[in-house]
Amino acid sequence: MFSSGEIRVNYQVMEKVFNDILLRHSFNEDKATMCARIFADNSLDGVYTHGVNRFARFIQMVVEKRVLPEEAPTKISGFGGMEQWDGNLGPGPSNAIFCTERVMQLADENGVGCAALANTNHWMRGGTYGWKAAKQGYAFICWTNTIANMPAWGAKESRLGNNPLILAVPQNDEAIVLDMAISQFSYGGMEKFAMQQKVLPVPGGYDEAGQMTTDPKKILETQRSLPIGYWKGSGLSLLLDLLATILSGGKSTFQITAQKSESSVSQVFIAVKLSSLHNSFAINNIINNIIADFHNAAPGGTSDKIRYPGERVLLTRKENTENGIPVNSKVWNEILAL
Amino acid sequence: MFSSGEIRVNYQVMEKVFNDILLRHSFNEDKATMCARIFADNSLDGVYTHGVNRFARFIQMVVEKRVLPEEAPTKISGFGGMEQWDGNLGPGPSNAIFCTERVMQLADENGVGCAALANTNHWMRGGTYGWKAAKQGYAFICWTNTIANMPAWGAKESRLGNNPLILAVPQNDEAIVLDMAISQFSYGGMEKFAMQQKVLPVPGGYDEAGQMTTDPKKILETQRSLPIGYWKGSGLSLLLDLLATILSGGKSTFQITAQKSESSVSQVFIAVKLSSLHNSFAINNIINNIIADFHNAAPGGTSDKIRYPGERVLLTRKENTENGIPVNSKVWNEILAL
Repeated sequence: MFSSGEIRVNYQVMEKVFNDILLRHSFNEDKATMCARIFADNSLDGVYTHGVNRFARFIQMVVEKRVLPEEAPTKISGFGGMEQWDGNLGPGPSNAIFCTERVMQLADENGVGCAALANTNHWMRGGTYGWKAAKQGYAFICWTNTIANMPAWGAKESRLGNNPLILAVPQNDEAIVLDMAISQFSYGGMEKFAMQQKVLPVPGGYDEAGQMTTDPKKILETQRSLPIGYWKGSGLSLLLDLLATILSGGKSTFQITAQKSESSVSQVFIAVKLSSLHNSFAINNIINNIIADFHNAAPGGTSDKIRYPGERVLLTRKENTENGIPVNSKVWNEILAL
Repeated sequence: MFSSGEIRVNYQVMEKVFNDILLRHSFNEDKATMCARIFADNSLDGVYTHGVNRFARFIQMVVEKRVLPEEAPTKISGFGGMEQWDGNLGPGPSNAIFCTERVMQLADENGVGCAALANTNHWMRGGTYGWKAAKQGYAFICWTNTIANMPAWGAKESRLGNNPLILAVPQNDEAIVLDMAISQFSYGGMEKFAMQQKVLPVPGGYDEAGQMTTDPKKILETQRSLPIGYWKGSGLSLLLDLLATILSGGKSTFQITAQKSESSVSQVFIAVKLSSLHNSFAINNIINNIIADFHNAAPGGTSDKIRYPGERVLLTRKENTENGIPVNSKVWNEILAL
């Protein structure tokens, strides 16, 4: 019997455990190192849903041959700063790291680069790629499409994905990273509220009667979640899918959905090399000035602090580095048994 | 005395009236033609707030020498597909058209192009540039920063702009264009609801007690409007400002706000040439298939039709072409007197 308590796992220990398991599942050394680090980093940063809590499911996808560890992206076409790549159903994190590195090279050579990636798999936490590129001195945008998990505005059935969108800029030695799904809440997030018998802070979807509700249980029943900004997020999700699909030549949300399982998604990566801009010397200062002004606003909410996207991540990272990464012991024991 | 009734003005008549006024205000022929067409097209498409209803205010900005009709963008730096331009406080619409055309050329030469524009003025309707580029066969993204008009999540004071974001793709001979401010409602939109004694369909901001409300009058009093998706739109607005500012080397929302009037804004334009992609032959089909799936969802709202961004524009354009553009006669008489 497993205990259900929370334990703290040291970062290096977690990374080593992930790495060993990946090596036992046909990942070569480079790819095992890369993917182990991403799962451990996501956990260190507090994104457990796309870190330690997702690792067993990721391995299950490998076992079911829906994620192919031996595959890597191959180039389909290229013209100047724009390239199209096929992910060949390889691991989502290593495919996305590949394209992040590639788009930075393209920006080095062309000022701006865009890489579109077809037939890839879930990249886990989109912010991974934003942090990486921004910390290396690039302005960076990326997004992915997903399986349908959200109805369009005015619709009852889910035909849109929550299509996470990432925007990132460097700041000092770190980064400011917006990593945002287009749904107001994830289903995982709503399950957590439901388990804790809490209501959502704002409406997250619809009940059976078609009324908007803050009751997560009712939304989990109807599977009618809300896009951010209602009609606006609905349009944004559609356009992100259209762009990812046509730029990559890969599958659209409706084609991914027809497969019944979320694989073969489409992604776009865009980078601009900041050191080649005429104002490059002033960029770090202006970012700090913008953030200082942002922080200076009089607070008006329940929180005493106004935070920029990614600010809380730095605090969590520090805490988890010092005290270990919190993991449910059942989850950890399941991983150790893989 | 003016009548307050609504009249219908023929498109060609409206364009000619605008053109004559612009010529009398130091616009050269090319720029007068371009700006007259943009204001008339925005009106034809139903975006009256950034068309006929804004024209007198635009001329006022010219009279006050905050919009300089003789100015056009000058290139500050360029490297491959990435260029930085200074708008020299020229007219926002002609500056933005210039950069849209320039970024399409950059995409022709480099696959992907990015032009960042500093020191420009209000571009009126961002969708103008999305429709233009998409109809010419480009995937297109652009955004602008603005004066502060929205508090960050958790803040009472407005330190963020509503920073409109445009994403566009071609469809058949037309386009699918998302043109979205990051606030849930514009102040102009809320004023309209207030005048009609209507409540907003979803919360649009806060009342004096710091509670979210659907009462537009209370939000107009507090000037505390909501970003789309609450904390998510707050982050998105901040990142769009950071990116526009650093990529252009121009002014940030906080610097624009310090001037007290909205001029010298920063904008970004990104285009990908679709005809150079390996799947270019299939793009129109896949877009139509995505839209067909989107339309096919069972409706669940108050509307009987699920519409993609820009779909309603086509209907309005047709109606206003046939019947003339609806204008408040007072507004029209004020324009005729300019």
